[in-house]
Amino acid sequence: MRDVTPDNITEVFTGYFGPDTDPRFKEVMGALARHLHAFTKEVGLTHDEWRAGLKAMEWAAEITTPERNEFVLMSDVLGLSSLVDMVNSHPGATSSSVLGPFHVSDAPPIAMGADLKGDFEGEVLLVQGQVRDLDGNPIPGAKLDIWQTAPNGLYSSQDPDQDIMSFHGLMTADEEGRYAFTTVRPVEYTVPTDGPVGQILNAAGRHPWRPSHLHFIITADGCRELVTEVFPEDDPYLDQDTVFGVRRDLVMSYEPQPAGTFPEGFDLSGKVDGAWSKVNFDFKLLRR
Amino acid sequence: MRDVTPDNITEVFTGYFGPDTDPRFKEVMGALARHLHAFTKEVGLTHDEWRAGLKAMEWAAEITTPERNEFVLMSDVLGLSSLVDMVNSHPGATSSSVLGPFHVSDAPPIAMGADLKGDFEGEVLLVQGQVRDLDGNPIPGAKLDIWQTAPNGLYSSQDPDQDIMSFHGLMTADEEGRYAFTTVRPVEYTVPTDGPVGQILNAAGRHPWRPSHLHFIITADGCRELVTEVFPEDDPYLDQDTVFGVRRDLVMSYEPQPAGTFPEGFDLSGKVDGAWSKVNFDFKLLRR
Ligand SMILES: [Cu+2]
Ligand SMILES: [Fe+3]
Ligand SMILES: [Fe+3]
Repeated sequence: MRDVTPDNITEVFTGYFGPDTDPRFKEVMGALARHLHAFTKEVGLTHDEWRAGLKAMEWAAEITTPERNEFVLMSDVLGLSSLVDMVNSHPGATSSSVLGPFHVSDAPPIAMGADLKGDFEGEVLLVQGQVRDLDGNPIPGAKLDIWQTAPNGLYSSQDPDQDIMSFHGLMTADEEGRYAFTTVRPVEYTVPTDGPVGQILNAAGRHPWRPSHLHFIITADGCRELVTEVFPEDDPYLDQDTVFGVRRDLVMSYEPQPAGTFPEGFDLSGKVDGAWSKVNFDFKLLRR
Repeated sequence: MRDVTPDNITEVFTGYFGPDTDPRFKEVMGALARHLHAFTKEVGLTHDEWRAGLKAMEWAAEITTPERNEFVLMSDVLGLSSLVDMVNSHPGATSSSVLGPFHVSDAPPIAMGADLKGDFEGEVLLVQGQVRDLDGNPIPGAKLDIWQTAPNGLYSSQDPDQDIMSFHGLMTADEEGRYAFTTVRPVEYTVPTDGPVGQILNAAGRHPWRPSHLHFIITADGCRELVTEVFPEDDPYLDQDTVFGVRRDLVMSYEPQPAGTFPEGFDLSGKVDGAWSKVNFDFKLLRR
């Protein structure tokens, strides 16, 4: 086009697509360009602001490694990652929520009633529930890949003092789709703030905290994989998760239990003297 | 928010801004998030597509260097760079157009009538014109930073066989705001296609070509800097510039001149035997 204008640029852009372009590619790229064009026009983006955006990308490029991806974090704090989770959630199923960067592949299998707490300090937390389909039928043998922070707020992959598989386990649900394990309460933590995302949060007057949570990836034959997190209702950051991961159906509660009531059937049975807490959380998976 | 939904996520995002946030930062980031959220919802972006977008950013990060910035190129082929140029252009002034990655700082001063062609092959091209303000008053002493491709399609910074200042010069306009120099016709070229931008262009069925052009950065005391390019009307890619740089007022024409008519007052005067061409192009700068 020899006469590109702010009014026709989106049209010119879509006019450049070749005749054999994949229709979905065209739809996604065309919409991306249209919304970015609308943004640029609406705010009258200046050259300095455009350059500041590019500087943020260049800085993100410099500090991104296989272990620390600043582009994913940028998507997280803009709410994009959570929005992708939400638009791909099925209304009847348990909501998905951000995977985050701290998942470790090949977690060790753990048996029903196993313990993740080990020698770490803190009150024993018993977590249990059932994996069902949308009709309420249990899903026997569902696999639950479980991980969380240690009491110091660090995941094993961040903490040289932890074994890499500390607070990680892969549990197989029983014949009734039930799972149960012991651990300690996960704690709230901050996203990394030493890059452009930290600078953006700071300029926005936002804190970098996430509410504490237990991570789960749940898979079962014939079901859609569920990547999610569950959050305690009494967490101070529940209403201000900096990556927008909380959904109403992912909120659970710690139920305090008096000393001397810890049940049989757990690795820790007979070893819990004081008070402990319990979480009941059921998952609903979508059958494909 | 413990109940983030696709409907309220933009509101939740803007609700996170602190009370002391700079209002312009809030406006720009709020609008960016709103348009990206709208895009994500409109197309129902899948996790695979989200990951493909992140892979493109990671690949761009890997190949970006001070000399080759894939993020700028991404902005260019999406039409964003040109749109920023357009929304910041003043209607009465000459349009601005993309700076591109090939500008070299500290170009050598060249005198009125100087030659950039040197020993390169090709018909002599005489380029001349006047720098004026919006009222038509000449701007004496305006500085014109000029650069272009060699006949092989390469800028000096891309071509080990060229001196780094080949086809680069800094001219000072005369008392009447006039400039004049000789050169050869610049040629069309492609943007780099060996990164994610090349992959996107390919998937879109788009070519990577830019129409040929002369680059100018024009500065003068009391005037807004003008970064622009001018394009010949007979270029085959004039209507399909892959970075959307062409504007109607930036199109010029090569006027063919018979042998033996080359004028006095140029470094090449007396040395041009054959036919030559002429370009007249005037610039209008905005006074601040
Ligand atoms: Cu939009
Ligand atoms: Fe986490
Ligand atoms: Fe160029």
